Amino acid sequence: MMTCIMLVNAERQQIASVAEQLAAMSHVSEVYSVSGQYDLVAVIQVSGPEALSALVTHALAAVNGIVRTETMLSLRTYRKQDLDTMFDIGTS
Amino acid sequence: MMTCIMLVNAERQQIASVAEQLAAMSHVSEVYSVSGQYDLVAVIQVSGPEALSALVTHALAAVNGIVRTETMLSLRTYRKQDLDTMFDIGTS
Amino acid sequence: MMTCIMLVNAERQQIASVAEQLAAMSHVSEVYSVSGQYDLVAVIQVSGPEALSALVTHALAAVNGIVRTETMLSLRTYRKQDLDTMFDIGTS
Amino acid sequence: MMTCIMLVNAERQQIASVAEQLAAMSHVSEVYSVSGQYDLVAVIQVSGPEALSALVTHALAAVNGIVRTETMLSLRTYRKQDLDTMFDIGTS
Amino acid sequence: MMTCIMLVNAERQQIASVAEQLAAMSHVSEVYSVSGQYDLVAVIQVSGPEALSALVTHALAAVNGIVRTETMLSLRTYRKQDLDTMFDIGTS
Amino acid sequence: MMTCIMLVNAERQQIASVAEQLAAMSHVSEVYSVSGQYDLVAVIQVSGPEALSALVTHALAAVNGIVRTETMLSLRTYRKQDLDTMFDIGTS
Amino acid sequence: MMTCIMLVNAERQQIASVAEQLAAMSHVSEVYSVSGQYDLVAVIQVSGPEALSALVTHALAAVNGIVRTETMLSLRTYRKQDLDTMFDIGTS
Amino acid sequence: MMTCIMLVNAERQQIASVAEQLAAMSHVSEVYSVSGQYDLVAVIQVSGPEALSALVTHALAAVNGIVRTETMLSLRTYRKQDLDTMFDIGTS
Amino acid sequence: MMTCIMLVNAERQQIASVAEQLAAMSHVSEVYSVSGQYDLVAVIQVSGPEALSALVTHALAAVNGIVRTETMLSLRTYRKQDLDTMFDIGTS
Amino acid sequence: MMTCIMLVNAERQQIASVAEQLAAMSHVSEVYSVSGQYDLVAVIQVSGPEALSALVTHALAAVNGIVRTETMLSLRTYRKQDLDTMFDIGTS
Repeated sequence: MMTCIMLVNAERQQIASVAEQLAAMSHVSEVYSVSGQYDLVAVIQVSGPEALSALVTHALAAVNGIVRTETMLSLRTYRKQDLDTMFDIGTS
Repeated sequence: MMTCIMLVNAERQQIASVAEQLAAMSHVSEVYSVSGQYDLVAVIQVSGPEALSALVTHALAAVNGIVRTETMLSLRTYRKQDLDTMFDIGTS
Repeated sequence: MMTCIMLVNAERQQIASVAEQLAAMSHVSEVYSVSGQYDLVAVIQVSGPEALSALVTHALAAVNGIVRTETMLSLRTYRKQDLDTMFDIGTS
Repeated sequence: MMTCIMLVNAERQQIASVAEQLAAMSHVSEVYSVSGQYDLVAVIQVSGPEALSALVTHALAAVNGIVRTETMLSLRTYRKQDLDTMFDIGTS
Repeated sequence: MMTCIMLVNAERQQIASVAEQLAAMSHVSEVYSVSGQYDLVAVIQVSGPEALSALVTHALAAVNGIVRTETMLSLRTYRKQDLDTMFDIGTS
Repeated sequence: MMTCIMLVNAERQQIASVAEQLAAMSHVSEVYSVSGQYDLVAVIQVSGPEALSALVTHALAAVNGIVRTETMLSLRTYRKQDLDTMFDIGTS
Repeated sequence: MMTCIMLVNAERQQIASVAEQLAAMSHVSEVYSVSGQYDLVAVIQVSGPEALSALVTHALAAVNGIVRTETMLSLRTYRKQDLDTMFDIGTS
Repeated sequence: MMTCIMLVNAERQQIASVAEQLAAMSHVSEVYSVSGQYDLVAVIQVSGPEALSALVTHALAAVNGIVRTETMLSLRTYRKQDLDTMFDIGTS
Repeated sequence: MMTCIMLVNAERQQIASVAEQLAAMSHVSEVYSVSGQYDLVAVIQVSGPEALSALVTHALAAVNGIVRTETMLSLRTYRKQDLDTMFDIGTS
Repeated sequence: MMTCIMLVNAERQQIASVAEQLAAMSHVSEVYSVSGQYDLVAVIQVSGPEALSALVTHALAAVNGIVRTETMLSLRTYRKQDLDTMFDIGTS
């Protein structure tokens, strides 16, 4: 599994609806509305690059109200101890 | 509890060591090295603004190799079902 | 209580009306029209992140004439003596 | 009296000390450490432009740890009712 | 009196007309079309912040063709000899 | 004569001294310390491009404390009534 | 032959279609959808500057959905062993 | 004579037509379509600032397809030997 | 295999040596020196995120002369005909 | 022959010396000191990409005082009539 963190800017009037549309997507585990220069941060879990491509170029393309996205691939996780939690990218 | 997502740029030679120093901090739950214009994304859990202030102005100030940080307060979580996991900002 | 400082860019013709709409909001204590690259600075007092989320994604979304906002959470106040004044974030 | 709002970026290790040095200055009423791309927001009250010039080019010049400042003149205050509070720029 | 210097970007087809509309305003003493990243520089004389606020949020709001303005308050003048009038560089 | 308006960023500790060094130069008529993202605005009068080149590459090069300059050539002046001298805004 | 690498930003809903239109062009050898601030990277092979000019100002101009392109001329290739063809990384 | 170099961004579909409209102008000696973040570079020869003002605010304003221009005044030419060529800004 | 495209800015005096150091790395297939705002473009082939993390945080950290890198994960390849190898553009 | 236009930012104290060092280079036909955000514009004539690579990574690397360069390849020239002048990229 590949974890990605996506920074999202949305139309001001559609921040909540964009968050809900993203959160409803199968590959999206969490979406946070945040303070600062971005509006949302989405945590994405995909099988690999092609799955991420399909998500970006097709699923996200259908979401109304997104102004801009910037996807960061999570390369390695650093944490005190291995938690079997949401961010757990445990292998299948 | 307040969840914050911190975008971090680090000195090129110290990305791994900065990630480890951050992950060792009590208020930091996860740190991800990422592709793109930022180097690390840290997930922070604090009791409130004052605790975040102490973390930023004291604990982080002692971490060698940080070039720049930008802290985003997580305002609200949107996800399919409420998981009692890492990002769970549930009280108690 | 959580104090936030919001930098606002507004449509040129609607700076005054945006300022008035913001100032009328319950969580907004002051709004200043300012010189420089921003148009307005709003001082916000909310109970916590969720209240700020509701303000940003719903109340602000209804204000016509806002081009862009950037919300900064006030982490800690530094001042000569504790005044029981507007910016007082005295604990309950 | 003229109210100014100053956005400040400080050296990471000196955010707290810069905040304290600013707050100790006679013309500075409040200093907030904040989340986001800036580190501090200072609220300044001066008699006029010349006093602000003296503050910026002399008093601030002596503060160690400031990386960059951007001063915004407050042109007009918009708030629900006139409070005789910290931000009160009541006429002499 | 307070002197301000306003950097102006205008619609390409309306640089001249914006310059003329600004120059006709009572508080505007000179307007220069300039090379570089800005289109116009306007020199403004106002009694104080509130007058500047009225100019920015009302008079300027009515000028067609302005894309963006950035107002700088002149804090102090430095020149070889003190001339009675502001910006007086009368040739011998 | 050619009028130029130069935007100047200076070292924080040397804003006043840079302003004084510039104001002492023969081709510089006025220097203003200003609020906002720039520190100084200098008004320059030169005979033509070569004189401006000499000013920028030699005279200014010798001024300690300048971080960055951006020179704008004034193309045309727009003002209510045509005054003999450049920048003459003498009050009645 | 001249190799160019073109960074492309496309309308969110048209990333895939822009990629396909580019890949179908004779001078375009590969197009990659990518993570990060750009959407696509196109590898272009042309006989010289004039051919690149025709591609940019005519062929690309006809592609719907391109927001912005930035073309970089490849000056020199550095790789472990000299392969006959440009970009040949055939696996064992 | 004054030589200016103008950096031009044009609508993607109108790069060639903008180049041709500019090249047809009396004061424009050459126009180059270029790679990189700008689309065109125009070399302009004018008698002085007022002529440049007329060119920018009137002639260029009539050219369809220009998104943004940034004009740089050539202050001084440095070259191996004085060539009686296009860029020759020789006195009358 | 995962293909990544890395944009690199290098110290001016070390562009060639950085290119050679990168090209010598096992996971780097090609490095191009390029015109424009970046200095080099490196094509990288890794087994997955962890391998990319090791490359970025360790191998690249040891390369002298790199100022900044921005890594883009290639999500999907679009090209006229499916060639056996990644980036194979062998002429007939 | 390939014509390139290079935008150069130089150390403030070394603008003239950088211009002279560049103008002395065989492939550089003209160098202009300019107003605005750049300091110099150099016109370069090279046989092809490899010659430009040698110029950028070796000859320019030896020039003291250059802060940053951005090279634009001239794709096509648009001018009223073909002049056999400096910018003439006429085929041999």
